[in-house]
Amino acid sequence: MNQEYIIPNAWSIIEEGWNPSQVKSSESLFSIGNGAMGQRANFEEKYSGASFQGSYLAGVYYPDKTRVGWWKNGYPEYFSKVLNAPNFIGIDVFVDGEELDLATVQAVSDFRRELNMKEGWYERSFVAHFSDDKAIQVVARRLMSLEIDELAVMNYQVTAVKGDLRISFQPYIDAGITNEDTNWDDQFWEVEELLSEGHQGLVRSRTNKTNFYVATFMQSELIKNGEHLQYAEHFDQNDTLIRHKAVCDIAQGESVTLIKYAGYVSSLNHEHSDLFNAAKAVLHKATALGYESLLKLQADSWTHIWAMADISIDGDLKAQQGIRFNIFQLNQTYSGKDSRLNIGPKGFTGEKYGGSTYWDTEAYCIPFYMATKDQQVARNLLRYRYEQLDKAVENAKKLGFSSGAALYPMVTMNGEESHNEWEITFEEIHRNGAMVFAIYNYIRYTGDYRYVPEMGLEVMIAIAKFWHQRATYSQPAKKYMILGVTGPNEYENNVNNNWYTNYLAKWCIEYAVEHIHKVKKYYPADYDRIMAKTKLTDRETIEWLEVAENMYMPFDEELGVYLQQDGFLDKEIIPVNELSKEHRPINQKWSWDRILRSCYIKQADVLQCFYFFEDHFTKEQLSKHFDFYEPLTVHESSLSPCVHSIQAAKLDRMDQAYQFYLRTSRLDLDDYNKEVEEGCHITSMAGTWMSIVEGFGGLQIIDDKPSFTTKLPQQWTGFSFKINFRHQIIEVQVTSAGTKVSLEGKHAQEIILNGEHITLEPQLVNA
Amino acid sequence: MNQEYIIPNAWSIIEEGWNPSQVKSSESLFSIGNGAMGQRANFEEKYSGASFQGSYLAGVYYPDKTRVGWWKNGYPEYFSKVLNAPNFIGIDVFVDGEELDLATVQAVSDFRRELNMKEGWYERSFVAHFSDDKAIQVVARRLMSLEIDELAVMNYQVTAVKGDLRISFQPYIDAGITNEDTNWDDQFWEVEELLSEGHQGLVRSRTNKTNFYVATFMQSELIKNGEHLQYAEHFDQNDTLIRHKAVCDIAQGESVTLIKYAGYVSSLNHEHSDLFNAAKAVLHKATALGYESLLKLQADSWTHIWAMADISIDGDLKAQQGIRFNIFQLNQTYSGKDSRLNIGPKGFTGEKYGGSTYWDTEAYCIPFYMATKDQQVARNLLRYRYEQLDKAVENAKKLGFSSGAALYPMVTMNGEESHNEWEITFEEIHRNGAMVFAIYNYIRYTGDYRYVPEMGLEVMIAIAKFWHQRATYSQPAKKYMILGVTGPNEYENNVNNNWYTNYLAKWCIEYAVEHIHKVKKYYPADYDRIMAKTKLTDRETIEWLEVAENMYMPFDEELGVYLQQDGFLDKEIIPVNELSKEHRPINQKWSWDRILRSCYIKQADVLQCFYFFEDHFTKEQLSKHFDFYEPLTVHESSLSPCVHSIQAAKLDRMDQAYQFYLRTSRLDLDDYNKEVEEGCHITSMAGTWMSIVEGFGGLQIIDDKPSFTTKLPQQWTGFSFKINFRHQIIEVQVTSAGTKVSLEGKHAQEIILNGEHITLEPQLVNA
Repeated sequence: MNQEYIIPNAWSIIEEGWNPSQVKSSESLFSIGNGAMGQRANFEEKYSGASFQGSYLAGVYYPDKTRVGWWKNGYPEYFSKVLNAPNFIGIDVFVDGEELDLATVQAVSDFRRELNMKEGWYERSFVAHFSDDKAIQVVARRLMSLEIDELAVMNYQVTAVKGDLRISFQPYIDAGITNEDTNWDDQFWEVEELLSEGHQGLVRSRTNKTNFYVATFMQSELIKNGEHLQYAEHFDQNDTLIRHKAVCDIAQGESVTLIKYAGYVSSLNHEHSDLFNAAKAVLHKATALGYESLLKLQADSWTHIWAMADISIDGDLKAQQGIRFNIFQLNQTYSGKDSRLNIGPKGFTGEKYGGSTYWDTEAYCIPFYMATKDQQVARNLLRYRYEQLDKAVENAKKLGFSSGAALYPMVTMNGEESHNEWEITFEEIHRNGAMVFAIYNYIRYTGDYRYVPEMGLEVMIAIAKFWHQRATYSQPAKKYMILGVTGPNEYENNVNNNWYTNYLAKWCIEYAVEHIHKVKKYYPADYDRIMAKTKLTDRETIEWLEVAENMYMPFDEELGVYLQQDGFLDKEIIPVNELSKEHRPINQKWSWDRILRSCYIKQADVLQCFYFFEDHFTKEQLSKHFDFYEPLTVHESSLSPCVHSIQAAKLDRMDQAYQFYLRTSRLDLDDYNKEVEEGCHITSMAGTWMSIVEGFGGLQIIDDKPSFTTKLPQQWTGFSFKINFRHQIIEVQVTSAGTKVSLEGKHAQEIILNGEHITLEPQLVNA
Repeated sequence: MNQEYIIPNAWSIIEEGWNPSQVKSSESLFSIGNGAMGQRANFEEKYSGASFQGSYLAGVYYPDKTRVGWWKNGYPEYFSKVLNAPNFIGIDVFVDGEELDLATVQAVSDFRRELNMKEGWYERSFVAHFSDDKAIQVVARRLMSLEIDELAVMNYQVTAVKGDLRISFQPYIDAGITNEDTNWDDQFWEVEELLSEGHQGLVRSRTNKTNFYVATFMQSELIKNGEHLQYAEHFDQNDTLIRHKAVCDIAQGESVTLIKYAGYVSSLNHEHSDLFNAAKAVLHKATALGYESLLKLQADSWTHIWAMADISIDGDLKAQQGIRFNIFQLNQTYSGKDSRLNIGPKGFTGEKYGGSTYWDTEAYCIPFYMATKDQQVARNLLRYRYEQLDKAVENAKKLGFSSGAALYPMVTMNGEESHNEWEITFEEIHRNGAMVFAIYNYIRYTGDYRYVPEMGLEVMIAIAKFWHQRATYSQPAKKYMILGVTGPNEYENNVNNNWYTNYLAKWCIEYAVEHIHKVKKYYPADYDRIMAKTKLTDRETIEWLEVAENMYMPFDEELGVYLQQDGFLDKEIIPVNELSKEHRPINQKWSWDRILRSCYIKQADVLQCFYFFEDHFTKEQLSKHFDFYEPLTVHESSLSPCVHSIQAAKLDRMDQAYQFYLRTSRLDLDDYNKEVEEGCHITSMAGTWMSIVEGFGGLQIIDDKPSFTTKLPQQWTGFSFKINFRHQIIEVQVTSAGTKVSLEGKHAQEIILNGEHITLEPQLVNA
């Protein structure tokens, strides 16, 4: 953990001072993106020090041949890789013929980075000293346009601090890039065509195997004293790179700026043959608007986002900065416009985890997008899974399931499983339950029941079939059991009767049957279509219910708690706080077998069920289970603290809730796990949002009405947030004086505030 | 399975007819070796068809960088590879300038292979037709000398069948070889020096990383009509290969023979600088003896081996051939002369499994070598583990154990773990118990108690420490449990309380304590040395015993059987014979998760304990457990049928015992698993021997006396075997008329024969 790294600020992430050992971490933290593409905060100019280069294009991946020791039947053929895409940010800079490289210049001073979250740009500035009488100041700002999501703009200003200097800018695009993460050192990209025309450069490349076609493009302008300068159309080119050159002499004190418009267009959105034209159209639009207008449009776009998504916290600057960073990154990662995309665990900030979609989306991310954007965004996330249902059925078939049972993949880019640890791929099947929970959560929140007959019911049926087939009847217990699973707590593998899994399975079946009946009654045409497609019989649903009704639930009478799995109490139970520090984190300090036979819990497991189905349990039950399981939890997943923060708040343990909140919200900014250089923990950021809205704000949906049970951590003087509830905006402002709730919309909305039913009229109500 | 493949014969393995699709399988079956080296039956001359090249040098390996998906703490850095060593068998043959290649000649006729097990040589003969008027007959015999274990000899005779022909032999050694099995396509060998002198060729190479130095050498003689011919010292050479040339004209009907002496000398046995001299010394000795004498010496060596190790079976030629093939291969693989070597699962017949030493040695192989060779051989196998004790302690330390606890590796070449599936490496810890069982078994059989104070006790103490630390006290059960293990049945992973493991653990502790007391009393000097070294305290052994005495043993009262593990009865229990054929073998047809949650057993697990500790249980108990577990066993390990054959015989289920026997003894000859091309199942061959001696012969050691309970399968008219018991030879001959036992030795020996105590006098007794 490094709490001194980032300077606290309400709206910006700021780093001051030149520290080469922090470059890779800052490259992650200062990443920018616009939902369609994103990139790490690599330097524009050459940098020969340690760096982790990354530009990423949503939906473009490579199926890298799986690497395992011994093959096991059912393993997927490949592990998908997030692809480092061609570099378009590059601007090599020469000062009197000497190349600018912060790793080799005489000295660097006044180094500063700022990620301005309010307006959506990233700026880096510094003074580079080449010799005692030669120095330049650089101010390099860039943005990825939300308005034109194929476009990025760089504004690279050089000022002669010492000396009259000749500045040579060499903007380039480089398609000769590689991944840090590759199993077999395969080549991921092939370059197809390079084209240099005037001040434009274009490269079309193709991904191997997946055949995504991408045109990377650039166009530059040179500006001095507000005037566009003409410069020669000089360029170099090799098999994978186009480099232009713009030279300008400046006197001491003068500045010159290179503006570079660049970006990607891809075959996801254009015809292969039309890519260069599409790129030129983007460049035409961008240069017509110009840098200042694009900067303004960017600020406007972000103003629009913040108007809905902002959370303000008073009296705690670090907490404020943390939550805004989380909200900012989530919006950079996923805009919800494209139902083919999803939310990668590292977003556009790194390569790790090799897929875009985990159950994180359904369990942690949907509430955020549902409440801070139009409900269509959440619907698109659900639709993503619906569109991949066939592949989930295929996946289950590979494992021996039949007649349309579906197992959604643990990790995926396109619906196919692309993870290959048997204990995860084959056994962490609770993920299937999260798919149905997300549908339930969506309908509960939005009231958009149409989704069920349109798409949701087919998913529910396929998943109910899976659970039915996956259960085993235990003769001794006279109950159905689910053997050989891994729960959310991945520090247990191949256990029997993980309570969370069994509970979800039972619930999934019952929920599916409930909605089969409902669709039959209210949407008979859809019902007929779905029954014809799924060939579901009454007999089969009766068998499902037999399994659901007789599902085994491990429970200890003496303790009065559900057991994480069979045999859990046979372990040596020692609370985490009695474990000496040298043993932690256990995933780094202990061998895998020691972790497995220990009682320690990686992230909420039993408590995840209490989170999902809060209303199925009493507060006393929650309290008892929290008291038993939390002390055994090491929170070594980024998804762990948020659930515990919410539950601690429910239980009025505000100090604990606050500590968990801080840990989740500043996980990356304070680099808790000393790994931020690999990228940020994007999906857990949605959990941070939940800790405030569902934890301190106590949001629940009860009988179609939002309910808030608000609690103010003593470290804060107040906080406020908004939610988009069924096309109207509800704002909640909590201070020590009480809670104010207001409504922006057209018609009255009934809510529950701290237990009281209230009708909000548009534009003013408080309590 | 292919029962028509090998022609039944009492003393030879014979294949007739040319079938290119069988070449790789035959390369495995006709392998030859001498304990120090061995090789697949690759052709001497060029063969451009499908082939699997393999020459192996005992103790020479490569630590190939581990290949896994996600790294887990405690994984070993490397997975050792059995190395394909330089090729010294090569003799390219040209007929009138046309190269002999069975894949491209006009026709092949009279193709025949014979592996003569009685005399220890391999011969291949065929007629190759180049055109309608040009054909040769080849008779190529070769052997790996038992007498001079660095030497192989090839006798390659060519006869002009049609036409007067110019035969050009090009004997070569080729160090530019690769492995089929490599994780990262690393280069395993570097060539250091090549030397061609007269008709000798020598190449010295070095293995990368492990730095074994090996000189591969050859020398050739050309013989026609019994006369040695002079031929020019012509040679070619490149970076990795030396090729000589010997040309001879023969008229139709005449023959010419190339004799090639070749082999390896290595830095395991010689100074690096002296390797070429050592090679020349071998060649000098070999050529001085000449081919015929070497052939005679080889037959003598095998006569000596068979005199002790042969088992004869009357009335069942296939069963006879099967057992001799097993005994032959075991003797080719391990001679017991060198305590640094061990018995690889594929011996010298393939690359698979990547290590020489598994628990197979202790559980399955020691009885064979103990009874058919001098007891020093078995002692060397025990000593191998003693010498690797430090590395086993290190291995346990990596996993979190302390104060000298040892965990022997699952797979090893040099004592370090070199396997990396967590469920095996970290969890299949029962292997530790087999180390102690082997000591117990050795002492019981040989009476060589000296081994305990000298070496065995240290091993026992380190292993008892491991079990003590590995056990967990279960509060609910008030018992010690062993959580998170994989038993011998590898179709269950990470289970709690595998009964076999718990039973072994308890026994290991009690056995260690018993011998600590015994050594203290009878070998006080050794005791003091060992206590000083291990720092064992009385308090610690009291704690051990507390664990042993309170070890939890899963047992089902209703069924009256010990349970393979916790929760076993929650599975769906359907006997294997009710499983339709399309599902088998399940390890090929089912996904891993389906296998794991099924009740199916790969190899003896609970029954392995009944095998090890036969005398701890009643016949009724055995019967009950056999009836419960065998029907659930799929026998998908080559180590499975033998144990079940022995137990079926004990239970007088002779038909079943016979079927299991056939399956184990002809596993490779009939290619049961359609995989013999990868190599033979060497370690399970020792199990085949046990099926006869311990199954049908009923050998047990009871109170220092051999006991035989003999049973004759109805398919046989008789069988006989010998055992070396404490330096005297006992021969047992079983026919339908009864059992004859005779003794070769110097003093009387009490035995138990079918329940009766008998004193055998040297040279004649019967019953």
